Amino acid sequence: MSEYIAPIRDMQFVLQEIAGLDQVAQLPGYEEATHDLVDAVLEEAAKFANEVLSPLNYSGDQEGAVWHDKQVTMPTGFKDAYRLFAESGWPALACETEWGGQGLPKLVSAAIAEMWKSANHAFSLCPLLTAGAIEALVLSGTDKLKETYLEKMVSGQWTGTMNLTEPNAGSDLAAVRTRAEPQPDGRYRIFGQKIFITYGEHDLTENIIHLVLARTPNAPEGVKGISLFVVPKFLINDDGSLGERNDAYCVSIEHKLGIHASPTSIMAFGDQGGAIGDLVGEENRGLEYMFIMMNAARFGVGLEGVAVCERAYQRARDYARERIQCTDIGVRGGPKVAIIHHPDVRRMLMTIRAHAEASRALAYVTAAALDAAARHPDAAERKRNQAFADLLIPVVKGWSTECGVTMASIGVQVHGGMGYVEETGAAQHLRDAQISTIYEGTTGIQANDLIGRKMAREGGATLKSLLVTMRALDAELAGQGGEHFASLRSRFTAGIDAVERAADWLVTTYGKDVRAASAGAVPFLKLLGTVAGGWMMARSALAAQARIDGGSSDPFYPAKIATARFYADHVLSQADGLASSIVDGAVGVLAFSEDMF
Amino acid sequence: MSEYIAPIRDMQFVLQEIAGLDQVAQLPGYEEATHDLVDAVLEEAAKFANEVLSPLNYSGDQEGAVWHDKQVTMPTGFKDAYRLFAESGWPALACETEWGGQGLPKLVSAAIAEMWKSANHAFSLCPLLTAGAIEALVLSGTDKLKETYLEKMVSGQWTGTMNLTEPNAGSDLAAVRTRAEPQPDGRYRIFGQKIFITYGEHDLTENIIHLVLARTPNAPEGVKGISLFVVPKFLINDDGSLGERNDAYCVSIEHKLGIHASPTSIMAFGDQGGAIGDLVGEENRGLEYMFIMMNAARFGVGLEGVAVCERAYQRARDYARERIQCTDIGVRGGPKVAIIHHPDVRRMLMTIRAHAEASRALAYVTAAALDAAARHPDAAERKRNQAFADLLIPVVKGWSTECGVTMASIGVQVHGGMGYVEETGAAQHLRDAQISTIYEGTTGIQANDLIGRKMAREGGATLKSLLVTMRALDAELAGQGGEHFASLRSRFTAGIDAVERAADWLVTTYGKDVRAASAGAVPFLKLLGTVAGGWMMARSALAAQARIDGGSSDPFYPAKIATARFYADHVLSQADGLASSIVDGAVGVLAFSEDMF
Repeated sequence: MSEYIAPIRDMQFVLQEIAGLDQVAQLPGYEEATHDLVDAVLEEAAKFANEVLSPLNYSGDQEGAVWHDKQVTMPTGFKDAYRLFAESGWPALACETEWGGQGLPKLVSAAIAEMWKSANHAFSLCPLLTAGAIEALVLSGTDKLKETYLEKMVSGQWTGTMNLTEPNAGSDLAAVRTRAEPQPDGRYRIFGQKIFITYGEHDLTENIIHLVLARTPNAPEGVKGISLFVVPKFLINDDGSLGERNDAYCVSIEHKLGIHASPTSIMAFGDQGGAIGDLVGEENRGLEYMFIMMNAARFGVGLEGVAVCERAYQRARDYARERIQCTDIGVRGGPKVAIIHHPDVRRMLMTIRAHAEASRALAYVTAAALDAAARHPDAAERKRNQAFADLLIPVVKGWSTECGVTMASIGVQVHGGMGYVEETGAAQHLRDAQISTIYEGTTGIQANDLIGRKMAREGGATLKSLLVTMRALDAELAGQGGEHFASLRSRFTAGIDAVERAADWLVTTYGKDVRAASAGAVPFLKLLGTVAGGWMMARSALAAQARIDGGSSDPFYPAKIATARFYADHVLSQADGLASSIVDGAVGVLAFSEDMF
Repeated sequence: MSEYIAPIRDMQFVLQEIAGLDQVAQLPGYEEATHDLVDAVLEEAAKFANEVLSPLNYSGDQEGAVWHDKQVTMPTGFKDAYRLFAESGWPALACETEWGGQGLPKLVSAAIAEMWKSANHAFSLCPLLTAGAIEALVLSGTDKLKETYLEKMVSGQWTGTMNLTEPNAGSDLAAVRTRAEPQPDGRYRIFGQKIFITYGEHDLTENIIHLVLARTPNAPEGVKGISLFVVPKFLINDDGSLGERNDAYCVSIEHKLGIHASPTSIMAFGDQGGAIGDLVGEENRGLEYMFIMMNAARFGVGLEGVAVCERAYQRARDYARERIQCTDIGVRGGPKVAIIHHPDVRRMLMTIRAHAEASRALAYVTAAALDAAARHPDAAERKRNQAFADLLIPVVKGWSTECGVTMASIGVQVHGGMGYVEETGAAQHLRDAQISTIYEGTTGIQANDLIGRKMAREGGATLKSLLVTMRALDAELAGQGGEHFASLRSRFTAGIDAVERAADWLVTTYGKDVRAASAGAVPFLKLLGTVAGGWMMARSALAAQARIDGGSSDPFYPAKIATARFYADHVLSQADGLASSIVDGAVGVLAFSEDMF
C-alpha cells in the first residue's frame, strides 16, 4: 500500500512565496522562523508523518479503538507512536515558550499539522483537541490552573479534550444542561452527560484533562449561562503527582463511518457523587472561551480537508502509475498502458491536485493572518488581519472539507473496483473525510457564520476589501503571455464578479429576509472558497512564472502554472452558476410548506 | 430507524404522465399493463420493499455476508426474504412469459427494481445479476440450455452471475485469460480466476448459474476471441435434478466499503480438473452477448443512483422533522424548532429530492424507450427508440449514480454528528452508493461510451434530435405564467445551449484529437445528465400545471412545480460552467508530462 510522502516542496513554495513566511518571521517572537529552521522542522515532521504515522493509518482503521469496562484500548502501535510524538516535542510546536512550547508561528504549525492529518487523521485529533484545551487554559486559566496543567499538556504527557455536545445540545449550545455545583472549597462538582467527545478516553497517557461546558445554579438560560470547567480524569495532588480517579468516565464509544482509531466517547460526569472541576475564567463566559478555541479548532479541521485532498491525490496517482489497463485511447492494438495515460484519469488527478494546492494556499495564508493578528506591532494591522482571518476561517473549514469529501470520492473512482475494496486504502480516506464537514460546526453552520457574523454584520466591508485585493492582481495577470494566463485572468475576473454579485445580494437581503439570505449561505461559502482558491492559484502561477523568468528550470513551476490553468477552466468556471443559485435560488429552497416534503 | 416507504405517488406520476405508460401498454404483448394492474403491482412491491427488504438493510450491512470454507453464509433474514421474494413471483416480473415470466414492460419493472434498490441495495443485486444471466440465455442459448436453466432461474429457484472481471482484466476485457478447453462430448472445461463476482456464492438457493467469459484454444487475441459459457455450481442431470458439484468455487469474498450483504466473490474455475461449461451462442462472440446484458445491467445500476437519492431523502427528511435544534433563524428567544425549519436544511433536502425526481423520470423515460425499441410495430420507431435509449443509458448509469453519491453525502450532513454514527443508517447509504459509480463500467467508461460510440460515431445525430425535442418545449413553457416557469424556461434554454455548444465541440474534436475530446467526456456526461434532468423537471412541471389548471388541489402538483423551480436555479445553473470546462478544459487536463504528477 502506498505510504504518504509529505509534499514539502509545495509546502515550502506556499510558505515562502504565497503566505509570506518572511513577513511572519519579522513579527515579535517569531524571529527564529527562518527558512533554514522551518525547512529543518518540515523535514523532521515529514519523517515522522511518513515513517511513523502513515503506516498506522490503515491498521488503526481496521483495528479501531476498543472500549471495555469504561476504558479504551488504542489500536496496536498508537501508544508507541504517541510516546515518540511527545518525546520529539511535536505537541509543543506552536505553544507558548513560557510553558515549554517552541513558540513557532501558526503558519509553520499549520504545515506540520497538515502532515499529521494526511498521514493519520485519527491520530492527529488527539493533539488537535489538546491544543484547544491548552489555548483555553493559557487564555483564561488562573495561575494555579496554568501551573497545574500546562507544562504537562504542552509536553504531551497529558492530553486534553473539549466537552461541549450533549444529546440535545449539538449545534445549539444554548441547550447545554450539564450542571456544576459549587463546593465550599471553591471547586465544583460536575453532573451530566457529554457525547461525541474526541479522545475522551484512551490509554496513550496517564491523565486526560477535560474542558467541560456546564451551568452553575441560577445561571441565566441560553448561551449566557454557560461556564467552562477543567475536569481531570485523575485529580492532581498539590505536589503535581496524580491523585484520586475523578468521577468522569467514558461509558461507551461510537461506532462510526470512519476515524475508527479516534475514540469518540460518551462521557458521564458525576454518576458517583460528582466530578471535581475548577472554573476556567469567569462564570457564564464559557461559550466565549470556547468560541476562541473553536476558531482555532475550525481552522485545524479545515486543514483536514487540505490533508485528505493531498493524501487522496498521492494514493490515486501512485495507483494510476502502476495499474496497466487498456491501450491509449484512439490507439488500436498498441501496448497496454498505465491508466495515468487515460485523459479521464488525468482529469481526476488534476482535479484532486488542484483542490489540494488551492485549499492549502488558502489555509496557510489564513494562518499567516492569524499570526499577524496576534503579533503585529501595529494595532490597525492586527485588526485588519484578524478580520481577514475571521472571514476566511469558515471558508477554510467549510469549503476545504467539502472539497476533501469530493476529492476522496474521486480518489476511490481512480482505483476502479479496487477502490471499493477496503484493503486498497482509498475508501478509508472517504470515510474519514466525511466527519470534517460535520464536527466543529457543519458546513451549514460555517456558512451562516460567514454570511451573518462575518459579512452582514459589517456590511460586507472585509469581503469588499478582499475583492479589491483580488482585483489588484489583474494588471499582473494581464502582463503575462500565453493562453494559460489569459484563461486564468478571464475566469478569475468572472469569479470575482460572481462573488461580488452574490455578496451584494446577501448583504442587502440579510437584514430584510434572513431566511432567503440563509438559503444561499452554503452556495456562497462554496463560491467564495472557489474564487479565493482561484486567487491562490493565480498568485501561485505568477510566482512560478517569476521563477521561470528568473531562469529556473525546476519542473515544479510549469506544473504549478498548468495546475492553475486547470483550476481556472474546471473549478472557477462554476462560479457564475453558484452566484445564480444564491441570487435566484431562495424561492426554490423556501417554497415548500413543511408537509410538502 | 426510519424505514423506506416506496414513493408510489411520484412513480405513478412519472409512469403515467412523463414516461407514457399508456403508449407502452399499446405495444404488442404489453396490453396487460393497464393503470389498474400497474397500480396493484406497485402496491404489492411497495409492501414487500417496505416491510421485508428495508428492515434487513441495516442488519445485513452490520452482519455482512460471511465466507468460510468456500461457502458463504448470508446475513440473518436474507434466506427467508429471498424465499418470499421468489414465491411472490418478483424475479419473473419482466421475464418472457414463455419461461414463466410475467412479461411486464421494462418501464414497470424499472419502478419495481427502484424499490428493491432503495429498500436494500445489497439484496437487490442478486435479482439484477440473475436477470442479466437470463437475458443472455434467452438471447443466445440453445434450446437445450434454455430448457435446462430458464424456468428455474425465472422462478428464482436458481440465481445467476456474470463472470467478466479478472485481476488484470477489469475495464479491459480484451485481457481476459480464462481458458475454455473443448471436450469430446461437445462441452468445455473452464480454467481461470474471476474477481468481483456479485453473488458468486451464497446460501439463498440450491444452485447458482455462472455465465463466464473465457477463451477457447487458438481464439484471436483481444475482444474478438472471447466466448461466453454457462457454468452451473451444480451440474444438472438429464431429468433436471441436481448432479455433481462443479469445479467452480468461491475462494474468498472482498472486504468492501459497502454493500456488505452482497457477497463479492473471487471465483476459481478448474482448480480440480476443470469446471464443466457449455458454450452460449457462437464462439468468439461472447463480448457481444455480454454487451447486450451490460446495457441492461448499466440501466439497472443507474436505477441504483435514483434509488439511493430517494432513500437518502426519506431518511434525512424524517430526521429533519424530528430533530429539534436551535430557534428559527432570526428569532431570538423563540421556541426551539425542528431542523426542517432551517433554510440550509431545506436547501439540502430540496437538493436531494430534486435529483431523485429528475433522475427517476430520466430513467423511466429511458425504460419506455427500451420497451418501444423492443416491441414497436414500426421498424423506424424501434430504431429511433433504440438510439435514444443507447444515448441515455450511459447518462442514466453515470450521472444518476454520481448524483447518488453526492446526495447520500448530503443526507449524512443533514443528520449532523449523528450522520457519522453508523446506527443512524445514513452513512450506509453513502458507503453503498459509491459502488454504483464503479461497477458495470466507471463513470469515465460511461462517458467515453457516450461521446464516442453514442455521439461521435454518428456525428451527434441522436443527440441533436434530442435537443430539438427539448427545444420544442419552449413554447409550452413560455405559455405558462409565474416566476417558477419563467426561471425554468430561461435556465432550461441556457442548459440546452450549453449542451449544444459542448456537443458540437466534442463531435468536431473527437476525430481530430480524441484525447482532448476524452478529457471532456465526464463533464459532458454530467452536463447532459443535468440538462436532461431539467427536461424531465420541465415536463413534470407542465404536467403538474395542467392538473392544477384542470382543477386538482392535490399538493403533489405545486410541490412538483416548486421542485422543478429549485432544480432550475440550483442544478441547471451549473450547465454553462460545465460546458466551459469541456470546450476550454482539455489543455489543463493534458498539460502535464507523466512525471509532473
